[in-house]
Amino acid sequence: MPSLLHYEDFTSGDVRASEPRTITREEIVSFAAEFDPQPMHLDEAAGRNSMLGGLAASGWHTCALMFRMIFDEFVKDTASMGAPGIEEVRWLRPVRPGMKLTLRRTVLDKRVSKSRPEMGLVRMRSELLDETGKAVIEQTNTVLIRVRNPEAA
Amino acid sequence: MPSLLHYEDFTSGDVRASEPRTITREEIVSFAAEFDPQPMHLDEAAGRNSMLGGLAASGWHTCALMFRMIFDEFVKDTASMGAPGIEEVRWLRPVRPGMKLTLRRTVLDKRVSKSRPEMGLVRMRSELLDETGKAVIEQTNTVLIRVRNPEAA
Repeated sequence: MPSLLHYEDFTSGDVRASEPRTITREEIVSFAAEFDPQPMHLDEAAGRNSMLGGLAASGWHTCALMFRMIFDEFVKDTASMGAPGIEEVRWLRPVRPGMKLTLRRTVLDKRVSKSRPEMGLVRMRSELLDETGKAVIEQTNTVLIRVRNPEAA
Repeated sequence: MPSLLHYEDFTSGDVRASEPRTITREEIVSFAAEFDPQPMHLDEAAGRNSMLGGLAASGWHTCALMFRMIFDEFVKDTASMGAPGIEEVRWLRPVRPGMKLTLRRTVLDKRVSKSRPEMGLVRMRSELLDETGKAVIEQTNTVLIRVRNPEAA
């Protein structure tokens, strides 16, 4: 196993982009049927008659898919210690079947925990962008990441 | 169809509780495999060796399940116009297989949109409680709900 990313490997202001990922109609309908069965997430005609203007993914589906892309982009290679929660989520544009989405994540700031010097707090903004570069969702949260050298920090 | 709940039917300070819902090991592992394949959400031993102290649901799974309970509790009977996002989520305690969860939602405050008098903004706190009444997740957000009588509001 290659060595994991630690707190020291994250730099404020750093911006990374992921490979694109296409969301399918089947994924949208399947998630909605289980977790958010509002008609505009299940049916074209209901979507057209809603404020979404067409079938679109549940906002919670977009959150979950974004986390999967965050996992693939860096969490899987990181000495993560979890996250206490989410600071903010903004659902900016409808996510349509067939849309090709790219993750952009930005390190906003970072600090070492005062009470637990082995734990770093890295605050990030994560966005999913459509093919034209417009953000469809934006999320801010703090990830807990292990410090490689607590003595040196 | 019975008449839908509108903005006027929500009262600041109102607290409602749902029927309990049990989360299963199969649901936890299935969600994690698709959206959050961190080992502590997939495997007992990995969970024990993590900060969660045992197999526990992905925080995003808890969010999605809570929304399903919110849907069943009132959204399905409400003239909802969607939600712009989430103000805050706090993951407070691990969500274990077999846990019986109850939704508690509180109306924090409400107002009619200045620019769109047919749209109300109802700010709510939603929590899932375990069998002992302790919150495992807490979320605050604003739901857009249609005003029944925009002239009167």
